Formats: sequence, C-alpha cells, structure tokens
Amino acid sequence: MTTGSETAHTIVTAAILVIGDEILSGRTKDKNIGYIAEYCTAIGIDVREVRIVPDVEDEIITAVRALSERHDHVFSTGGIGPTHDDITADAMAKAFGVTIDHDPRAVAILTTHYGEANLNEARMRMARIPAGADLIDNPVSKAPGFTIRNVHVMAGVPVIMQAMLDAVTATISTGAKMLSATVPASMGEGRIAAGLGALQKDFPDVSIGSYPKMLDGGFATDIVLRSRDQSRLDLAVRAVEGLIASLLVQRS
Amino acid sequence: MTTGSETAHTIVTAAILVIGDEILSGRTKDKNIGYIAEYCTAIGIDVREVRIVPDVEDEIITAVRALSERHDHVFSTGGIGPTHDDITADAMAKAFGVTIDHDPRAVAILTTHYGEANLNEARMRMARIPAGADLIDNPVSKAPGFTIRNVHVMAGVPVIMQAMLDAVTATISTGAKMLSATVPASMGEGRIAAGLGALQKDFPDVSIGSYPKMLDGGFATDIVLRSRDQSRLDLAVRAVEGLIASLLVQRS
Repeated sequence: MTTGSETAHTIVTAAILVIGDEILSGRTKDKNIGYIAEYCTAIGIDVREVRIVPDVEDEIITAVRALSERHDHVFSTGGIGPTHDDITADAMAKAFGVTIDHDPRAVAILTTHYGEANLNEARMRMARIPAGADLIDNPVSKAPGFTIRNVHVMAGVPVIMQAMLDAVTATISTGAKMLSATVPASMGEGRIAAGLGALQKDFPDVSIGSYPKMLDGGFATDIVLRSRDQSRLDLAVRAVEGLIASLLVQRS
Repeated sequence: MTTGSETAHTIVTAAILVIGDEILSGRTKDKNIGYIAEYCTAIGIDVREVRIVPDVEDEIITAVRALSERHDHVFSTGGIGPTHDDITADAMAKAFGVTIDHDPRAVAILTTHYGEANLNEARMRMARIPAGADLIDNPVSKAPGFTIRNVHVMAGVPVIMQAMLDAVTATISTGAKMLSATVPASMGEGRIAAGLGALQKDFPDVSIGSYPKMLDGGFATDIVLRSRDQSRLDLAVRAVEGLIASLLVQRS
C-alpha cells in the first residue's frame, strides 16, 4: 500500500523475472524469489511484482520489456548457461534491440578459468553478452551475468545467483527502507478484523497486513505493520497491541 | 518447448496468480507455486506462466485478465480472508464486470460453522462471492473459495489451498500428461552441451533441458527430457545415455 506521506522518502522499486521450464513444471522448486525479495526489502528496494516464464524467447522478451518499463530494476534468474536451452542472453538483446556477440571481457574470464584447450564452443556461449551491457562478477563458477539497461541478468543456481546479487546490489542506489514489525495475536482473523480495519483508517501511512496461520490445531494471526517512518510504525504497533489486549479481556 | 507433433494431443494450460504483499516483501516464502506446478504436471495440465502481485486492486485486475485470456485455467492464491487487506474477491468481480454480494450458499456454510452469534461482519466478508461464481469447498476452515469464469480463487494458507486444489481439479478436464525422464550426468554442462544441442535437433518433439547442480564441490548436470509420447521419450533417453557414455570414454 502506498500513501501520500511516502512521497517524502525515496522509493526504489524492482521486479523479479524467473526464467525456466523446470520451475513451471514443478520439477525444481524456486528458491530465488524469496531470497531476492527478503534481500531487497532489507537494503531498501521494494519488490512490486514477480513473473515466472518458460524458456521461450517471445515470453522472455514480452515479460522483461513490461517489467523494465514499470520498475527501477529487474532481477532475472536462469537461462545463462552453455546449453541449447539457455536463451536468456539472446532474448535480452532482442528485447532491447541491441546486438549480441562474444564479449572480450567475458572471453578473457572464461579463458583464464577453463584454459584455452577446454574453452569449447558451448562454453564460449557463456561469453555472449548484449552490446553495451556491464558484466556481473561470478565468484563461484566464473561465467558472468550482466546488466543491460535496468535489468540484472543472473544465473539460476541459487549459490551463484546469491553471489551475483551481492555484486550487483553493491553498485545500485537504494531507497528508504520499509520498516516492519510483527505483532502476534492468539486469535483467528475473524475476531480482530473489524478493529484492524478501523486502525488501518487511522494509520493510512502504515500498511497493516493480517496473516492467518495454524497454531496448535487452531488459528492464530500475525499482524504485520510496515512503514518507512519509525515513529508512526511504533505508534501503530502500540495501537494494535491495545486492540488485541481489549479483545482478550472481552473473551475472559 | 512446443512442437508440431504435440497438436495430436489435447493440451490444457494454466497460469498461477499469487496475491500478497507478504510474498513480495520476502516475509513469507511462497510454498504454493511449486506445489500447484507439480500437481498440475502430474494430472495433465501445463503451467505456462506465474505472476505474483501485491494486495492492490488494479494490479490484481490487470494480472487476472491477462492470464485468464491466455490460458485454459488460472489458479489464484491469497487474499480471501476476513480482514481489510483481503481484497481478492472484490477485485475478481471487477475484473470480470460482475456484481458481488453475500452469497446465500456461503452464508449458510459460515452460519453452520461459526453459529449465528459469532458470525460477525468481518467473517461475513468471507461470504462475499462474485455473481455467477461456483463455490470451492474448504474442508479445513470452511470459508469457501470460488471459480469465476476460468479462474479458481483459493486461499493462501498452504493446507487450505491444497484441499481446495483437490476439490477444484476434480471438476475440470485435463489434457495429455507431459511425461518426463531425468538422466544424471557426472559432468558440467559445458562438456555435454554440444551433443545435447545436436540431439535436440534430432528430437524436435522431445524437450531436452539441462540443469546444472553442485555435487561434491564440482558441477554435475541433470538432463531432463519431456514429451507426451512415451516411445519418443524412451528413444531420446537412450540417445542421451549414449552421449554421456561416449563422453566418459573420451575422458578415460
């Protein structure tokens, strides 16, 4: 939820684009979305949207163009390896209307890593980088990612993606951090909903979310409050705590 | 990858729409996408696209319209509880231009469950169902999901979502199952890539995917083959096994 008072803060937004048939088939369970989302929140980037698309060029192009236009940054994962189904780099070049070729910087990295004798044609595919892109360092397996426009193209293997995310976020400006607090309530959402709705109206600058969970066979609720203003967040937390206390008194 | 020969089979496609700020902030790690994807693959529904959007009405409306037009089914999760931030039902009604009100069938279910004395206004929110929708049974916590057009609107709590998915998939037609086989290769992708690319050309009706993984500190590769035709799949598996064997001989 965005409110008028947020405009006093610098907001930096991002989208995540996950590329890969294996995620859509359910064979591989994605571990990157949650990691990137939590990481971005912690450093002051708001993830506003996520898409998962198959290894199909048109789908990648359509998605990355839409996300790139709407957000300050796009973090993509997957499809930059050496095999025939790794089509992300070429799709990104097409999406932004630039050429793609073996990049001398990437070739140098791969030559050092594999040695010239082992740098076969398939591995050389990993040196194909769209024109004008910056490389993203890969300390794990060397083949670099790249940044084209506002799109950061990273590997799909989590350990490599995480190292690339460290590298790329070190180079970009972040915004005001979204602060959050969680207030647990030992009751289902239905009991606290009316009071929370009223509090949300009192605190339009604090986003109040309600998340049910199973606890000891019954329902409990986590109330999550988020704001970029610490004092308003603290005030809202005390109000929610007061609401819960009053409901517990009513019950006893 | 779709190929000409697939047209001999009935293909049923789906998209997944995850609704919730808590997923985008990283606070909650989504467990529904992987579950739905694997479930659909097993029963003969191809998941082609996934989107995660925030609790913002316009974002939900835009996403569900786009996905509903493009796919046979859309499975949505999240935002159908009793609190002020549960806006999915109203957004779905707006997306499809229908009215929304307390549904007598849903009211009856909630009255039986909570008793009239405890059926407060917030809980009654969960009986708001778009006009013309069918209810989806919720054996866990009773408040139903619903199907409007080709969109199946389910809860976000995994145990409830899973029960609703059982209920809704029992009522829909599925297509020819995508069959798959995994061949492990004890080598990095770079060694096998050229051979795999050639095999993919020999088997245009079998999708051949290559997935690197870390194993004992080095890289190994899972080759995943998918086809709706068992005999072609078997033939392609044998070809990939032959390729791996020939590469291992070269190395020894």
